[in-house]
Amino acid sequence: MPAQIGFFGLGIMGTAMAGNLVKAGWPVTVYNRTPEKAAALVAAGARLASTPLSLAEETDILIAMVTGPEALDALLWGEQGAAAAFSPGKTFINMSTVPPRYTLALAEELAPLGVTFIDAPVSGTKKPAEEGTLVILAGGDQDRIAALAPLFQVLGQKMVYCGPVGQGSMMKMAINLLLGVMMTGLAESLNFAQKNGLAPEALFAVIGAGALNCGLFQMKKEMLRSGAFPPSFPLKHMTKDLKFIIDTAFDSGAPVPTAHAVLQLFRAGVGFRLGDADFAAVYQVLEHMNSRE
Amino acid sequence: MPAQIGFFGLGIMGTAMAGNLVKAGWPVTVYNRTPEKAAALVAAGARLASTPLSLAEETDILIAMVTGPEALDALLWGEQGAAAAFSPGKTFINMSTVPPRYTLALAEELAPLGVTFIDAPVSGTKKPAEEGTLVILAGGDQDRIAALAPLFQVLGQKMVYCGPVGQGSMMKMAINLLLGVMMTGLAESLNFAQKNGLAPEALFAVIGAGALNCGLFQMKKEMLRSGAFPPSFPLKHMTKDLKFIIDTAFDSGAPVPTAHAVLQLFRAGVGFRLGDADFAAVYQVLEHMNSRE
Amino acid sequence: MPAQIGFFGLGIMGTAMAGNLVKAGWPVTVYNRTPEKAAALVAAGARLASTPLSLAEETDILIAMVTGPEALDALLWGEQGAAAAFSPGKTFINMSTVPPRYTLALAEELAPLGVTFIDAPVSGTKKPAEEGTLVILAGGDQDRIAALAPLFQVLGQKMVYCGPVGQGSMMKMAINLLLGVMMTGLAESLNFAQKNGLAPEALFAVIGAGALNCGLFQMKKEMLRSGAFPPSFPLKHMTKDLKFIIDTAFDSGAPVPTAHAVLQLFRAGVGFRLGDADFAAVYQVLEHMNSRE
Amino acid sequence: MPAQIGFFGLGIMGTAMAGNLVKAGWPVTVYNRTPEKAAALVAAGARLASTPLSLAEETDILIAMVTGPEALDALLWGEQGAAAAFSPGKTFINMSTVPPRYTLALAEELAPLGVTFIDAPVSGTKKPAEEGTLVILAGGDQDRIAALAPLFQVLGQKMVYCGPVGQGSMMKMAINLLLGVMMTGLAESLNFAQKNGLAPEALFAVIGAGALNCGLFQMKKEMLRSGAFPPSFPLKHMTKDLKFIIDTAFDSGAPVPTAHAVLQLFRAGVGFRLGDADFAAVYQVLEHMNSRE
Repeated sequence: MPAQIGFFGLGIMGTAMAGNLVKAGWPVTVYNRTPEKAAALVAAGARLASTPLSLAEETDILIAMVTGPEALDALLWGEQGAAAAFSPGKTFINMSTVPPRYTLALAEELAPLGVTFIDAPVSGTKKPAEEGTLVILAGGDQDRIAALAPLFQVLGQKMVYCGPVGQGSMMKMAINLLLGVMMTGLAESLNFAQKNGLAPEALFAVIGAGALNCGLFQMKKEMLRSGAFPPSFPLKHMTKDLKFIIDTAFDSGAPVPTAHAVLQLFRAGVGFRLGDADFAAVYQVLEHMNSRE
Repeated sequence: MPAQIGFFGLGIMGTAMAGNLVKAGWPVTVYNRTPEKAAALVAAGARLASTPLSLAEETDILIAMVTGPEALDALLWGEQGAAAAFSPGKTFINMSTVPPRYTLALAEELAPLGVTFIDAPVSGTKKPAEEGTLVILAGGDQDRIAALAPLFQVLGQKMVYCGPVGQGSMMKMAINLLLGVMMTGLAESLNFAQKNGLAPEALFAVIGAGALNCGLFQMKKEMLRSGAFPPSFPLKHMTKDLKFIIDTAFDSGAPVPTAHAVLQLFRAGVGFRLGDADFAAVYQVLEHMNSRE
Repeated sequence: MPAQIGFFGLGIMGTAMAGNLVKAGWPVTVYNRTPEKAAALVAAGARLASTPLSLAEETDILIAMVTGPEALDALLWGEQGAAAAFSPGKTFINMSTVPPRYTLALAEELAPLGVTFIDAPVSGTKKPAEEGTLVILAGGDQDRIAALAPLFQVLGQKMVYCGPVGQGSMMKMAINLLLGVMMTGLAESLNFAQKNGLAPEALFAVIGAGALNCGLFQMKKEMLRSGAFPPSFPLKHMTKDLKFIIDTAFDSGAPVPTAHAVLQLFRAGVGFRLGDADFAAVYQVLEHMNSRE
Repeated sequence: MPAQIGFFGLGIMGTAMAGNLVKAGWPVTVYNRTPEKAAALVAAGARLASTPLSLAEETDILIAMVTGPEALDALLWGEQGAAAAFSPGKTFINMSTVPPRYTLALAEELAPLGVTFIDAPVSGTKKPAEEGTLVILAGGDQDRIAALAPLFQVLGQKMVYCGPVGQGSMMKMAINLLLGVMMTGLAESLNFAQKNGLAPEALFAVIGAGALNCGLFQMKKEMLRSGAFPPSFPLKHMTKDLKFIIDTAFDSGAPVPTAHAVLQLFRAGVGFRLGDADFAAVYQVLEHMNSRE
């Protein structure tokens, strides 16, 4: 009998990921604070649990994909929280993006319960989640992670082992540092080009033909052209991640001057009420700061 | 009878580009301050001119690929300079990277001579130059540029029309802004990862599998792993370009906070005697600033 | 009978402050983890307590001047901690620099004990502490703070009421933001001047004669000239404070781009093993980054 | 017979300075592009010249206090320009703020004319100019500068010898670097304080009582409180100076990360149409970037 999968969190990412598990034939039970969001999944064959606790009681492998530490804390330790049902033999995989130090603290709290804890955030946003082409950044016991391969293969095209628990979250930070810098670099280049008389189409043609071309730029091109930024990865979440990165870099003594510059633009973006827009809206922050002479 | 091509400047880029023209069967005459550098090209069938002036007299389409404004000025206006032979019917294509305002000033100086002036810097460094896969950023008369397509097809895989003379140089600045930011982003991410216990191989595996992957990162991976930085695009040239970008951005009122942060790292790199290394050595600037606690 | 004063923490600042209280005739009992540091104070008439708890039991007004949250926590809640003796009728004045959010959390923890809690960090370092010319930044009940005026007058030349508990710490952050920026501005100006052929004496003469002149620059001139940086305010403490400032600014949405730039220099200073030097050694961080061409 | 003084440029600074010379009894002839601005000076005893050339012909010591290189070029080399009357025996003192490299180029151009050229920008703005308490930063022949002491004593309270021609301008850059950083530090601290619930009056009380207090902060306090920024030193001029500083720092290899951060705020200020306001309006740039959540 295959392991029963429990899935917490049905936002943009979680809905897509749980959907892929259902499609692949895994027995999936889901929980979400707003149960309405589960309707399509239930129609596709998932079961719906009424509390985190009952979900944890009924399943063997529990996956969380929520918005951050607060949501995760509520899920685990809140009223009818899942942790009360954690025990040896169960596995808890946190795929939400959280700071490495939160992950380490959580590992300590979970240790006495005997549950196997795997730290497995992902690289990739809405589209890769839907297509099952996420990259999974796994931290924890290497043998147990290897054993979870069939599950991870449904969710992502690749799994990279990053080290002990906490290092999955750390890798996510390293990747989001690069992601934030690249997105801002594109925005700065595009804005610079336009203020100096170049057509966006020409810039994208040059980028598209050369060594700087990448999936990210292709994905964001349409947003930048149209000025509409439906959230695939909300700007406020990137802001939060960059703050984690600055904090971690400060503690470890790694200089991140570019990340500092980039964080300040994203923070301004939250101030300019762009927090719920896609993080590509950092372009609009630059436009806002443009000379209006 | 095909047009006679004159080629000035046999550095890393120029040698590769002139070589591709010779291989493609164009009649090419070359000039370089150090004539020894022309030996292989002459062996392959190129002719060698003894002065810029004689090269300009003997050829119809003149291409310059030199290190910057000073070298170009010497070539055009110095002793036995090429400009003295410029006349209606001849075409001068500057493919060297120079600031847009230099290009505009040069266009004014060349106008009375009747020569057609095309501004055509390239995106891409050593390897694309050798493989003929550069992207050519062309500014100038659009019909004349279209007529040069057979020539450009030998040098690059794609030609993007950027606008009037000066806008090729401007596009180059927009691209190098993005290039400098992306390279620094990768360096900052890699250094951050290592200071926090992640293996470089794991980071590159994650990058390579996701939406951030691009030719640049694949090209620079080996340098970053080995710590050896043979110059494909020297750090001092990127430094110079970023200074142009800051200056242009200042004049046009486009905010470029990330470019400011990045410039300071490259400038420090020149100070740390990394100017002749590849610009990927910005990674070593970060290492130099790492906490040594 | 005058109130009995208890004083925790005999570092550079605390020793000077407690000394002034003794000199002014207040009955002072001191506690320090390393009791040897109390010798001169005891010789001058202070009493020495053997634990934080006994100090709190024997005195009415308790003043803490320690290195930060960790030291304060140990003092209050550690073994033989002072908090066990806190009760209505006693007043606890924290003059250590701590983040505002720490102060707010502490206020909540102390509330059930009935002790009056005053938040009163100071502006000024070693010399003003010795001369009793500190500026006291007081947060808490305004009437109670007014009643403490005779005590504060011994320690400082001026007391500024900043608002409810937490706002003394917040004011300290606002001042240290300015302090860090001004010190770095002086260092950057001096280094710029020297790299461009100006004599430091000439620069100091110009500064000393104009509207930029201030006590800080006069105090630090000798350090900058001599290259010796005996700590009046250690660089590592300024680094810690600037990190608090960045964090607070992030949370409140106040842009602090200059503070970000300055923090990165101080953090590098800690990496360059200048953490125990005076914070004016930020000048040496710049020298370290100077071009060595 | 005392030397005849010629004075070019009757802006905020020049009017005050020429007025002090007239009051001190020096024979002064003035020139300004808009002659109406000379009315009060003429009423006080100055003579008015109709062209720069006639002013230069009629006087021995010529002082220029204009807005920058362009104005100075027009004055010297334009139609009826002053340089045509420069000759051995005459002294030309440039007190306008210009980049050091401009000063050096000007020195070369003036050398063949035999005129003594002194580079003497000032530290201080409107009020010190009116009160004759400027600090004069003199570059050039040291004996000649010493001989000019009686003249300089009328204009300023102190003259600092900075080195050969060009070093007066260089000192001005070093001072304006510090000035720009300090003003921005105050603005950032004030904005931070207000966003976190502190009263501006309390912040100014703390600053005023401590080691950070200086003439600049006292002068700007009223502007910051009222939100009205009548120009004493226009923001656009500080922006221009900071750009010179960045450029000079780049060339000399002196790291100026704080100046980079500050320049970007001032440049944004020009974009926000604050260029003609006093440079203390950098505070409004921060307010503009404040989170509006």
